[in-house]
Amino acid sequence: MAVLYTSEAQRGEIFAAHFAAELPDLPFHRNTAPDPTNVEYLVAWTAPADVANRFPNLKLLFSVGAGVDQLDLVALPPEVGVVRMLEPGLAEQMQEYVTLAVLGLHRDLPRYISQKSANLWQSGRNIPARERRVGVMGLGQLGKAVLQALAPFGFPLAGWSRSAQQIPGVETFTDLSAFLSRTDILICLLPLTAETTGILDAELFANLPGGAALVHAGRGRQLDHQALLEALASGQLSSAWLDVTDPEPLPAAHPFWEHQQIVLTPHIACQTRADDGARHVIAGIRAHKAGLPISGLIDRARGY
Amino acid sequence: MAVLYTSEAQRGEIFAAHFAAELPDLPFHRNTAPDPTNVEYLVAWTAPADVANRFPNLKLLFSVGAGVDQLDLVALPPEVGVVRMLEPGLAEQMQEYVTLAVLGLHRDLPRYISQKSANLWQSGRNIPARERRVGVMGLGQLGKAVLQALAPFGFPLAGWSRSAQQIPGVETFTDLSAFLSRTDILICLLPLTAETTGILDAELFANLPGGAALVHAGRGRQLDHQALLEALASGQLSSAWLDVTDPEPLPAAHPFWEHQQIVLTPHIACQTRADDGARHVIAGIRAHKAGLPISGLIDRARGY
Repeated sequence: MAVLYTSEAQRGEIFAAHFAAELPDLPFHRNTAPDPTNVEYLVAWTAPADVANRFPNLKLLFSVGAGVDQLDLVALPPEVGVVRMLEPGLAEQMQEYVTLAVLGLHRDLPRYISQKSANLWQSGRNIPARERRVGVMGLGQLGKAVLQALAPFGFPLAGWSRSAQQIPGVETFTDLSAFLSRTDILICLLPLTAETTGILDAELFANLPGGAALVHAGRGRQLDHQALLEALASGQLSSAWLDVTDPEPLPAAHPFWEHQQIVLTPHIACQTRADDGARHVIAGIRAHKAGLPISGLIDRARGY
Repeated sequence: MAVLYTSEAQRGEIFAAHFAAELPDLPFHRNTAPDPTNVEYLVAWTAPADVANRFPNLKLLFSVGAGVDQLDLVALPPEVGVVRMLEPGLAEQMQEYVTLAVLGLHRDLPRYISQKSANLWQSGRNIPARERRVGVMGLGQLGKAVLQALAPFGFPLAGWSRSAQQIPGVETFTDLSAFLSRTDILICLLPLTAETTGILDAELFANLPGGAALVHAGRGRQLDHQALLEALASGQLSSAWLDVTDPEPLPAAHPFWEHQQIVLTPHIACQTRADDGARHVIAGIRAHKAGLPISGLIDRARGY
């Protein structure tokens, strides 16, 4: 029985120290394992399609990120559990990032950024938060945390998810077009699945009120990049704040770079913190050994 | 007895409607009064130095803004009361603005804005909020509201004011250098007075930890603009987020415009909302007539 870690090296140092302290009898290998048949736990960002052949006794595959969409799960035998990263730092960082983006769009920051590059001092009129309706697509751990962070500012809040949910102070929807028609700032935090690929498209934008704004901190492949450019050009959308693109890095010639109505950050909304990430993986291994529920274990059929 | 309103015309329409509805027997004039000796209440952004000569029966001078520093009070007889704008929208807008600025500096937004203009996709490392110490200079209504808005994010919070204060969850200081030495993001919300003019200078910046950041939403004349440029050049400050400058508008040739470590907005942190502003002035006039305490009446000796 052994653990193999194949992700980023600096974080691997910290994982190794935690495993040495907390599970000293469990061999912890980095990058390669002397005997692949010993590997029962794999901690990785990406994994090759033939991962089950390479590690025939694999029990759990831990993603080092909040999503698992980057893992090729098709060839993985159904009995191998896939565990996404859940650590308190991810929700905190998403609260910070989305609050920053929502307040930035609410307070016209894209306009003031471009005015600064034109040496132009010209003030617009502030709109009260109570007149700016904010909506979150995706009501998992991160979506709920974001709604909680936005609540004190007084925005009318709504959330959309496939299955009905109840969240105090939040109007929840399962009907997408009803949700979109009342949403001035739309936040996408959905996991990437077959259903959500390309979901942010021209039809969805057309269902928003004219002049709405987008915060995208889900996955780049959920966004029809051309449709976003067209919605910004027509005025259907006023602005967008993006942390993800397809592909990443965004190619240097892409029109998003020069676009004055887009704020762009290089996929930094959430970064797994090594200490908390190691604790999450160790807790998952302990739970697995004890036959207890594993925090972050995904539903392989749903994909999240 | 009459009211004279001399500020912005669109807001004046809304003030006139509120006065007509709520104090119909009190004449409300805009821009000029038929008989200046009748004017007991003046609502203005600026007022001429000879205001007391023009309106010999003036009782109260209402500022339409949160500050009174733009009013020339030297020649005003001591018995004329000066009332600053207090309306809930001002505190809400300052909470939004400063939270935006603090989260923007905390999450390296100036760097990502300049990377975007260079078509560069490169991520830095996020620092946990618990490791980013935030401090507010000025613990009046706005300073306290801002601290309340920042509290949920987990930043260690401190506040500095001339007189000792107690605020739950906030470390309060009257000693400026002790406050500065523990502050990674400094927020200035001080009123402009003789003591605070030029307070953000090279000596103050030198007392902050190296690489600290500044949010300035007080008044432009509190900031030594050259000292800020030098502190950014030396690395003593990493970045600054400014809503105020001296003069305003900032001249087109000023080095702040091109500066990559500065985010600049055109004095839009707080805008008095006409409806709430009119209610505040009407309440002040009613209180004055009834001999009751007037909300927002300043201490003329302190200047705020």
